[in-house]
Amino acid sequence: MTLKLYNYFRSSTSTRLRAALNLKGLAYEYVGVHLPKGEHRAAEYAAVNPQGLVPALELEDGTVLTQSLAIMEWLDEAHPARPLLPAEPKARARVRALAQMVALEIHPINNLRVLNYLDDTFGAGDEGKKAWFQHWVHATFAPLETMLAASPETGTFCHGETPGYADCCLYAQVWNNKRFEVDMTPYPTIRRIFAALDALPEFARAAPAEQPDAF
Amino acid sequence: MTLKLYNYFRSSTSTRLRAALNLKGLAYEYVGVHLPKGEHRAAEYAAVNPQGLVPALELEDGTVLTQSLAIMEWLDEAHPARPLLPAEPKARARVRALAQMVALEIHPINNLRVLNYLDDTFGAGDEGKKAWFQHWVHATFAPLETMLAASPETGTFCHGETPGYADCCLYAQVWNNKRFEVDMTPYPTIRRIFAALDALPEFARAAPAEQPDAF
Repeated sequence: MTLKLYNYFRSSTSTRLRAALNLKGLAYEYVGVHLPKGEHRAAEYAAVNPQGLVPALELEDGTVLTQSLAIMEWLDEAHPARPLLPAEPKARARVRALAQMVALEIHPINNLRVLNYLDDTFGAGDEGKKAWFQHWVHATFAPLETMLAASPETGTFCHGETPGYADCCLYAQVWNNKRFEVDMTPYPTIRRIFAALDALPEFARAAPAEQPDAF
Repeated sequence: MTLKLYNYFRSSTSTRLRAALNLKGLAYEYVGVHLPKGEHRAAEYAAVNPQGLVPALELEDGTVLTQSLAIMEWLDEAHPARPLLPAEPKARARVRALAQMVALEIHPINNLRVLNYLDDTFGAGDEGKKAWFQHWVHATFAPLETMLAASPETGTFCHGETPGYADCCLYAQVWNNKRFEVDMTPYPTIRRIFAALDALPEFARAAPAEQPDAF
């Protein structure tokens, strides 16, 4: 099976999907889509994903899957070994909610195209964009830290002792935070989980700096 | 079984979840959380959802589920009758991706708290906020229209002849668009699907104006 991953080293949705593929032990062909050069808006990529976003996963039969969370769900359904989600419905709901706090409440608001709009329309500048980025991280990381620290279901990782769905999202977001100098002091549980993840080769190999298109 | 739905009539994540509960045929107690009055930030609601967002669903055993998409997945797993998602993994990935285009790429960016930030920090004003809202709807509705119109899997609804997961998200977003006067002319397929959904009592009963806290 040859999977083709259209992605970009620094994109956090790409990082989370690389970690998920690594956790599953699935090999993939890395196709870099250079966002700053606008390759995601080129006609060639529009044929792959009309929305012009990375990542996208092309399957052996030519089917293209989009949206990283939807692809991670597909991975669990099509390749049930080494599950990313726990088995019990309420536990699954907890893990999905943790993942979605990052994937819905932080990432889309702090995306490159949104930051560009702030610059172009409101003249936000580098400082304004950084303040914006940090604001939305803190708005969600504060309750996320509370929820992780308070729950007996939190273990070495977001849910127990097996890294999975929520960890992929958290790991990628913390990498993204580093670029925007987010103060991580208030988040000891998140820092502890990130360190545990970064010690695993499946995650470390997914990190932005480790990708062939990194610069 | 008594489900308790903490929500707000105008919140589009609440609308999508009400539609999903109605499709499942599950009764629920409606608990209005008045966002403009800041009730979601009050201590009482923080005990329900530390993130202070609606909707949240309280189960009979006191478990509180958060994040509308995670709750919709739970509905399908805990109440498999009248499935929101199709059975086949690639079809499930398609439906989740369509839903996530709305739920990730539009809604979080156009959320009330983001619009408030634009006002407070950049002095966006009503016109600036409306332009922002419309911009992000069009950025995703254009490729969404293309994908829906091009796919043989699109039927009366987003996926075939059974309304489900993606339809709940689309229905709620189109209601939200009305408030911000989004021009829907370029989206004949989305308009057609919305009309088909609005003709179903499960959706019509979920519409913002039909809720007890509507004003």
